[in-house]
Amino acid sequence: MKVVLLGSGNVATHLGLALKQAGNDILAVWSRNLVHAEELALQLGAEPTNQLEVVSPTADIYIISVVDDAIEDIAHQLSIKDRIVVHTSGTTGINALNGTSVHTGVLYPLQTFSKQKDVNFSNVPVAIEGSSQQVMETLEFLVRQITGTVLKIDSTQRLSLHVAAVFACNFTNHLCTLSKEILSQNQLDFHLLRPLIAETAAKVQEFEPETVQTGPAIRQDLGTLDKHQEFLRKNPDLLELYNKLSHSIINSSQSSRA
Amino acid sequence: MKVVLLGSGNVATHLGLALKQAGNDILAVWSRNLVHAEELALQLGAEPTNQLEVVSPTADIYIISVVDDAIEDIAHQLSIKDRIVVHTSGTTGINALNGTSVHTGVLYPLQTFSKQKDVNFSNVPVAIEGSSQQVMETLEFLVRQITGTVLKIDSTQRLSLHVAAVFACNFTNHLCTLSKEILSQNQLDFHLLRPLIAETAAKVQEFEPETVQTGPAIRQDLGTLDKHQEFLRKNPDLLELYNKLSHSIINSSQSSRA
Repeated sequence: MKVVLLGSGNVATHLGLALKQAGNDILAVWSRNLVHAEELALQLGAEPTNQLEVVSPTADIYIISVVDDAIEDIAHQLSIKDRIVVHTSGTTGINALNGTSVHTGVLYPLQTFSKQKDVNFSNVPVAIEGSSQQVMETLEFLVRQITGTVLKIDSTQRLSLHVAAVFACNFTNHLCTLSKEILSQNQLDFHLLRPLIAETAAKVQEFEPETVQTGPAIRQDLGTLDKHQEFLRKNPDLLELYNKLSHSIINSSQSSRA
Repeated sequence: MKVVLLGSGNVATHLGLALKQAGNDILAVWSRNLVHAEELALQLGAEPTNQLEVVSPTADIYIISVVDDAIEDIAHQLSIKDRIVVHTSGTTGINALNGTSVHTGVLYPLQTFSKQKDVNFSNVPVAIEGSSQQVMETLEFLVRQITGTVLKIDSTQRLSLHVAAVFACNFTNHLCTLSKEILSQNQLDFHLLRPLIAETAAKVQEFEPETVQTGPAIRQDLGTLDKHQEFLRKNPDLLELYNKLSHSIINSSQSSRA
């Protein structure tokens, strides 16, 4: 299929590469920043531009992959009335594209993308939504080229998926940053935690997370919780997070037993 | 070496199996619960018992691997005066063993252990501490049989390691449990998040966590944060955690830029 990519961030980059690799033709890459458009366009054999009005009108699909607040604005500046226009946001509804093309949709890949790391797209769930059966079929055809997991869900379910992903990915990564800070304050290196982090993630590939919870909170080991709280007393923000998350673990275990 | 294991929980089980596999002789397994002692002893070719006074006095090392609050009590009930007695706690100091044997120490494996899942011990960091140079050398000799990463650190550094591990492992696993709850309230299955969780952990194997932080908080994408807060309004506990962790991400990024 002929694709135009609007955006040059992490999602646009990895999605563009996967679609290109699957044999699609990326006609153009638009970005507000021409250098960014050029960098990505070079990787995709596409035309770079920073002007929406010159974007080719002949593609099959226009994929808007920008920060949520900019989606509506960009969609309305595109003069595309009869081609498929989609965005890639977990949180923005399909209705943000109302009043643009008559064929609209959403294509939301559930993964964490960083430019410095390749991603194997084949096991990335991609949620799709379309303004018509015809759009759905086209999106499904496109997405099946790059992944084995296609989800047909509406905007509310997609929002819940995004919120869950923030807990399971963005927050867990941040907890790794906090653990690194704790170690460095005690002259220890973050690399010591890497086998532990790998094993924690490996466990939930195989088991349900609530069945493999370990640590002092789930054991209700009050002596250890006390010592950890004392240790964190000099860092009130970390102590507050420690207490909230420990209580949440204790509450979860009690409600699951009830 | 000849080893006696006091405890039959997750750490005792995996440590016992690794030591046995490395060719050590596990003489006995003590547990308050005789059935538990028997189950583990069977796997290790050891004598099971639930009576501390009959534990063989001829081992080279006695490894106490029980909940922190019970360590002191068990150590004092053991009538071992001239052999090495260690515990495996991250949080309890070596001094909890004062007044027992003249040779005491700590052997703390930094990993999350669940009975239902095998662990490759070879990359698990093991922190050791000894009451004398002689004890340190013996512990190092023993531990080098099962892992490539031996850490000689004191009780305060070990405590910091344990607290950091709670953030990087126990809390991250719990966030997966919470994300599963969010999905199931919206008729979606936890398995959808597994590739995301695997990739999140894979990234920090290669990169420093603060350099691969993604999501709405680090982008300061206020529109998305607003919509997520609105979505979580019906669940005040999750909303509070969402806000605390999002603020923590924003604060970290600002202090690292300052």
